[in-house]
Amino acid sequence: MKILIIGASGTIGSRVTAALESNHQVIRAGKDSGEVSLDLSNPESIRQALSQVAPLDAIVCAAGAVAFNQFDKLSREEWDLGINSRLMGQVNLTQIGTEFLNDGGSITLTSGIIADHPIAMGTSAATLNGAIEHFAKAVAQELPRGLRVNVVSPTVVTESLAVYGDYFPGFHSIDAKDLALSYLRSVQGIETGQTFKAHAGN
Amino acid sequence: MKILIIGASGTIGSRVTAALESNHQVIRAGKDSGEVSLDLSNPESIRQALSQVAPLDAIVCAAGAVAFNQFDKLSREEWDLGINSRLMGQVNLTQIGTEFLNDGGSITLTSGIIADHPIAMGTSAATLNGAIEHFAKAVAQELPRGLRVNVVSPTVVTESLAVYGDYFPGFHSIDAKDLALSYLRSVQGIETGQTFKAHAGN
Repeated sequence: MKILIIGASGTIGSRVTAALESNHQVIRAGKDSGEVSLDLSNPESIRQALSQVAPLDAIVCAAGAVAFNQFDKLSREEWDLGINSRLMGQVNLTQIGTEFLNDGGSITLTSGIIADHPIAMGTSAATLNGAIEHFAKAVAQELPRGLRVNVVSPTVVTESLAVYGDYFPGFHSIDAKDLALSYLRSVQGIETGQTFKAHAGN
Repeated sequence: MKILIIGASGTIGSRVTAALESNHQVIRAGKDSGEVSLDLSNPESIRQALSQVAPLDAIVCAAGAVAFNQFDKLSREEWDLGINSRLMGQVNLTQIGTEFLNDGGSITLTSGIIADHPIAMGTSAATLNGAIEHFAKAVAQELPRGLRVNVVSPTVVTESLAVYGDYFPGFHSIDAKDLALSYLRSVQGIETGQTFKAHAGN
């Protein structure tokens, strides 16, 4: 398969890349890194990147920003960060990606455990992660040509505990190499409209 | 209790009003109707309306627009209709409403069955309804002074079948008077962070 990985230089994306590149042709995309430049918050950037590398068999998104703050302090600007990236970035990627995928291709998006398990400062993330999971469930029924779409919902990644661990007190982390299996399952499996919750024990 | 009902002239809102006004002081709000003018898509309108009628014991939102279209034709403008009303309208109502509610007060929001059961043209509704359910679950952990927040998720209302029935082929409808019970449960009960799924049989 020819697979585009968005956010390929990140903690998650780099392990997903490692898991897939032994058996597939992997193209790395990122805002400021990789072989292809792709800014998830910009639909024109998505279209330009995909048109450079099409046709594809799979698109994996391990990117998507969202703001963290107390609910009473969350501004519309902070909400819009996530609305334009985590939510509409991945929605646009799915809509535009559909044009550039071969029959039977797949799109794998990323949400996160906060959709199910609230943390301090996490209201916007919970809302927009949840949105993406319901989006995938719905849009999977509508995609043409056997295209599939799934979501991976990670808990905090072990390799990121030094940075994000304080946000997730008492949460079980997952090693990035184990998390990568959920992405591999979405790409190589047959399921669609699913959210693979990579947060056992929580 | 002193209760503000937004969308009080609608099919759902009018039955919720009827169910609550025998035991409570109900104030009707709407964009172009009711005792108080409130445009859910405009945070300043929300603040102005609430400041006119505060303090309140409960706020019920039976409003919130969203666009319906095929996924491949959904434009950002159509997404924004729902983002600014169904999603951020209800988020803003919760954020601003918190300032105007008495201790132990409640906010009741509205999502819809499409979050769980996809229908044609319904991808944006599914996404934003789901977002509101995850929002309430998360923000309920953060609200101060014993404030509560819940969501009611209706199936298609029997009284609306003539207009919306074709969108919901084979779905069981709910009579508005039965649906009103879920709103009453949210206002008068003790639960918080919940989504009351008023769609038995589906």
